[in-house]
Amino acid sequence: MSENNSVLIGRKPVMNYVLACITLFHSGAKEVSVKARGRAISRAVDVVEIVRRRFLPDVKVESIDIGTEQLQPAEGSNTATNVSTIEITLTR
Amino acid sequence: MSENNSVLIGRKPVMNYVLACITLFHSGAKEVSVKARGRAISRAVDVVEIVRRRFLPDVKVESIDIGTEQLQPAEGSNTATNVSTIEITLTR
Repeated sequence: MSENNSVLIGRKPVMNYVLACITLFHSGAKEVSVKARGRAISRAVDVVEIVRRRFLPDVKVESIDIGTEQLQPAEGSNTATNVSTIEITLTR
Repeated sequence: MSENNSVLIGRKPVMNYVLACITLFHSGAKEVSVKARGRAISRAVDVVEIVRRRFLPDVKVESIDIGTEQLQPAEGSNTATNVSTIEITLTR
């Protein structure tokens, strides 16, 4: 149960992802991973801060990892692009 | 010397900040902090990834901290806004 609790941050409003995290913790998860790529990285940090500070003060940031993913070149282009990633693991 | 080596990420092109980090390490710094707020957070991760992967492979991510800062209300407004922050400490 612990490994698959991840919330992938996209372009929806921040509160959608906050609610997803809270729902996972309320359904018994001990660990939730918040993942994002590219510009969504700042939104991932917002989500984590709102979850911890406003809703679930007993949730701690267990670890933060950053990395790079290579994206396949778009059609008609030859160059693969790199995109930064973040994974923030929360525990309760 | 170690504490004051910080690079604050703003709205300039990513490579400006990459160069600032490299210059600090080349001038003998053992530790460099990359700091950002709000939407610049994703750019901070980009800067760190480019420094490590393309230019200085011996640089390691020592720690990553996230937090929240309260901004003073703008003139004519009463509500202070919160902004997320990140500080990524690199060591060589």
